Amino acid sequence: MVDFQTLDTETLRHMQQQLTLKYENFKRKNLKLNMSRGKPCPEQLDLSSGLLEGLNRSYHAEDGTDCRNYGGVEGLPEARRLFAELLGVQPDEIIVHGNSSLALMHDLIARALFFGVDGQEAPWRLQPIKFLCPSPGYDRHFAISEFFNIEMITIPLREDGPDLDLVEKLVAEDETIKGIWCIPKHSNPSGITYSDQVVTRLATMKTKASDFRIFWDNAYAWHDLTTDPVPLKNILTACKEANHPDRVYIFSSTSKITYAGAGLAMVASSVNNITRLKKQMAIQTIGPNKLNQLAHVRFFKNAQNVRLHMKKHAAIIRPKFDLVLNLLQTQLGDKKIATWSRPQGGYFISFNTMPGCAKKVVQMAADAGVELTKAGATFPYGIDPKDQNIRIAPTYPPLRELETAMELFIVCVQLVSIENILRGRERSSEECLFHPRNEAQIV
Amino acid sequence: MVDFQTLDTETLRHMQQQLTLKYENFKRKNLKLNMSRGKPCPEQLDLSSGLLEGLNRSYHAEDGTDCRNYGGVEGLPEARRLFAELLGVQPDEIIVHGNSSLALMHDLIARALFFGVDGQEAPWRLQPIKFLCPSPGYDRHFAISEFFNIEMITIPLREDGPDLDLVEKLVAEDETIKGIWCIPKHSNPSGITYSDQVVTRLATMKTKASDFRIFWDNAYAWHDLTTDPVPLKNILTACKEANHPDRVYIFSSTSKITYAGAGLAMVASSVNNITRLKKQMAIQTIGPNKLNQLAHVRFFKNAQNVRLHMKKHAAIIRPKFDLVLNLLQTQLGDKKIATWSRPQGGYFISFNTMPGCAKKVVQMAADAGVELTKAGATFPYGIDPKDQNIRIAPTYPPLRELETAMELFIVCVQLVSIENILRGRERSSEECLFHPRNEAQIV
Repeated sequence: MVDFQTLDTETLRHMQQQLTLKYENFKRKNLKLNMSRGKPCPEQLDLSSGLLEGLNRSYHAEDGTDCRNYGGVEGLPEARRLFAELLGVQPDEIIVHGNSSLALMHDLIARALFFGVDGQEAPWRLQPIKFLCPSPGYDRHFAISEFFNIEMITIPLREDGPDLDLVEKLVAEDETIKGIWCIPKHSNPSGITYSDQVVTRLATMKTKASDFRIFWDNAYAWHDLTTDPVPLKNILTACKEANHPDRVYIFSSTSKITYAGAGLAMVASSVNNITRLKKQMAIQTIGPNKLNQLAHVRFFKNAQNVRLHMKKHAAIIRPKFDLVLNLLQTQLGDKKIATWSRPQGGYFISFNTMPGCAKKVVQMAADAGVELTKAGATFPYGIDPKDQNIRIAPTYPPLRELETAMELFIVCVQLVSIENILRGRERSSEECLFHPRNEAQIV
Repeated sequence: MVDFQTLDTETLRHMQQQLTLKYENFKRKNLKLNMSRGKPCPEQLDLSSGLLEGLNRSYHAEDGTDCRNYGGVEGLPEARRLFAELLGVQPDEIIVHGNSSLALMHDLIARALFFGVDGQEAPWRLQPIKFLCPSPGYDRHFAISEFFNIEMITIPLREDGPDLDLVEKLVAEDETIKGIWCIPKHSNPSGITYSDQVVTRLATMKTKASDFRIFWDNAYAWHDLTTDPVPLKNILTACKEANHPDRVYIFSSTSKITYAGAGLAMVASSVNNITRLKKQMAIQTIGPNKLNQLAHVRFFKNAQNVRLHMKKHAAIIRPKFDLVLNLLQTQLGDKKIATWSRPQGGYFISFNTMPGCAKKVVQMAADAGVELTKAGATFPYGIDPKDQNIRIAPTYPPLRELETAMELFIVCVQLVSIENILRGRERSSEECLFHPRNEAQIV
C-alpha cells in the first residue's frame, strides 16, 4: 500500500494493466447489482412481519374511531402520541400522515409558494426565492426545489453540520432566502450529526426573511449503528427558546423502521404551524390511511419498543457497513486517492474520489453491472462542482453481493485515479513543451 | 295529506302547534345523530374484513416487487390492471395511488396552476381562472377550487347531467374557464347519471381554452342500488374519438368499496397525461402504500368479484334508502312543500325545500340533535341561491336511528314550511295595507 501520487509512471501503468484485467473479469460475471438507493434489505423488512396481520380484525382506535372509515386528517391520537414522544415534541405538535415524508415536504413547499407560510407573509411565489442546500445532501430534496423553480445555494457540509458562518451571513443579507434543507442526524450521505451549537445557531440566527423556514428532515432519527449514538439537540425547543417558534418543520417516517413501501410519515412543528397545516390538509384529503397507523401502534405499543426494534435493524446492517469500511480501508487506505465517511448511523457512506473522477467511477461500475447513485446527485442540480462525491448505499444487497460490488468499485476507483494521475503528468509535460521557459510548471 | 298552500291560516296554525309539540318531544330525547357525510356503515366495512390480514406474510407482487420496499409510483401492475378493467381504460392509462382520490384532484390542480397541464400551455396561475361547477354538487370539490382561488361558475344540474347548452356557450367564449367538476354517475348529491349525449357533448365541445380539462370524479362508478343500473358512457374513449384525448382526468377510489379510511385511489387519463403525471408525482413521493394495493388485489382477485362485492353493499344500504324515501313519500308526498331525488345508486338523497327554508330546517334538526350536511354546502362558496337544497346521507346510521332522524327531519321541514307560508301571507296582507290601491297585489 502506497500513495499513488508518489509512484513512478511505469509502476502506475503496470498497475493499470493488472487492474484492467481484474475489471474485465468482473465484466464477464454479468453482474446486475443495484446500490443506487438507500433501501432496507428483506431481512430488515422481515423485522416487521405480521404488522398488518396483527390488526386481527379489530379496527377501532383508543378514542373509538373506526379506522376503516373517513376522518381524522391529523392522525390517530395514539399514533401522534407515540411519534411525538420519539421526536421529543407534544402530541398536538405533530401530524401523522400517509407513507411518504417526502410528500409532506413537497406539499408544504407547494402551499408556501401559493399562500405563504403563516397567513401574514406573502406567498413565496410572488418573487424568485432561494433555498440553502448543505451538500452533499439528498437528491430528492434538491429535486423538489428544482421542480418548483427555487434557486439552490450550495452550502458546504462540515463534520458538525452546515457551514454556519456562511449560512448566517447569507440569511442575514438576502430576504429571498426562504429555507434550508437539513438532514440533521446521520446525514444523507455524509453521516454527520449536527452539533448542539449548530442547532442553536440555526434556531437563533437573524434572518432577513421573517418567513424563513428550516426543513428538518430527521429521516434517520433512530437509525444508529452504534450503542452510544451522538444525541441531536431538539430544534423545536431551541426555536421556541430563541423566540422563533414557527421556524422549523420536522419530518420523519417509519420508512426505514417498518416498511419503506407502506409506512407512516409525520411532520412536527409549533401548534401554530400544525393548526394551519391541518386546515390546509383538510382541503386535500379527508384523512390518511388510519388502519396502517393503528397497525403500527399496535405493533410497537410504545417508544421503547421502537428503539429496541432499531437495534435489530442495526444488527442486520452494521456488518454491511463494516464490510464496506474494511474493504475501503484495506484496499484504499494508504493510496491517497480517496476519502470516505465512517458513519455512526443512517444509510450511507459518503465517498470522495480525486477531483474529476466520480462520474467516471460510477460509469465504469455501471458498465460492469453495478449501479451506484448517479455521480453529482448529492449536489444541487446534480452538479458536483469537484466531481468527486459518490454515495455508497450498503444496506440492501446481501453481504456477498455487497463484497463483489465493492471489490469492483475499488478496482474502478483505482483505475480512474491512475488514469487521472497519468493524464495530469502528460498534461504537465505537454505544458513543458509548449512553455519551456515556465519552469514553475515543470514537475 | 294535502297541499299546504291550499290550507287556511287557522288550519296551518293548528298544525304548527301539533308539530311544535312533536318537535319538543324530539328535543327531550337528547338525540345525537350525525347524517352529515356520506359514510359507509360498519356492516359495509365488515364486508372487507380480513383484507389486510389476508396478506398472510407474503408481500411480493406478480412482477417480483417487494411491496414492503420503496418504488413504483404508478402503482402495482396487478392493481393497475384490475382498476383499468373496472374503469374501462388500459393499464397504462391509470395510476393507482394512496387512499385519497381527493388528494389526486387537489394535487393535479395545484400542478396545473404551477406548471400548466401539458408542458406547452401556460401555468394556470398566470391569470385568474374559472371552473364550471354543476350544482348541487360536492362541497369538497368546491372547497379545492376556493382554496386555490379559482372562480366558480354554478351550472344547473339537470336529470341527464349539467346544462350543456350553457356549458358549451361559456367554454366557447371564455378562455379563462379551465375546467369542470363532474360526478357523472349517481351524482353527489342529486343521484343523476350523465346521459350518453351529455358525455359526448362534453368530449366534443369546442373550448376557447385549449388546456380545458374535465375533472371526472367517478366516485360511485360501481355503487348501484338497483339490479339494472343506468350505464355511463366511457368519457376517455369519447374524448379520444373527439380528438381531445387529453381532455379528461378520471378519478375513483375504493373508499366506498373497501375502507373509506384505508382504501386505494386512482386517476385515469390518456397515456400522455399519465406519463406526465407520473413524472411529477415522482418528485412528490417515492411511491404509494403498495402493501395496501397488494392486499386489495389479493382480496378481490378480479373485477367480477368487485362487482359482486358491490351487490353486498347495495343489500345493506338499499333498505336505508327505501326507508327514507318511504317516509318522505308517506309524510310529505302530497304537501307540495318539498321535492327529492329517488337515486339508483350512490350515497345521497337530494332534498329541496321551499325556497328560503333549507338553512332553517338544518338548524332546527341540529338543535334537536340531528346533524345534517350544512345547508348551502352543495353549492359553490356554500351559497345555495334559493336556500332550498339539503343533502340526506342515509348510509351510516342504523335503520332505527335513521328512522328517528328522518321523522324529526320531516317535522322540521313541515314546521319551517308552515312558518314560511304564514309569513308570506302576513307579508301579502301588510302589502295590502301599505299599498291599498295596488289591487294586483291583493291575494
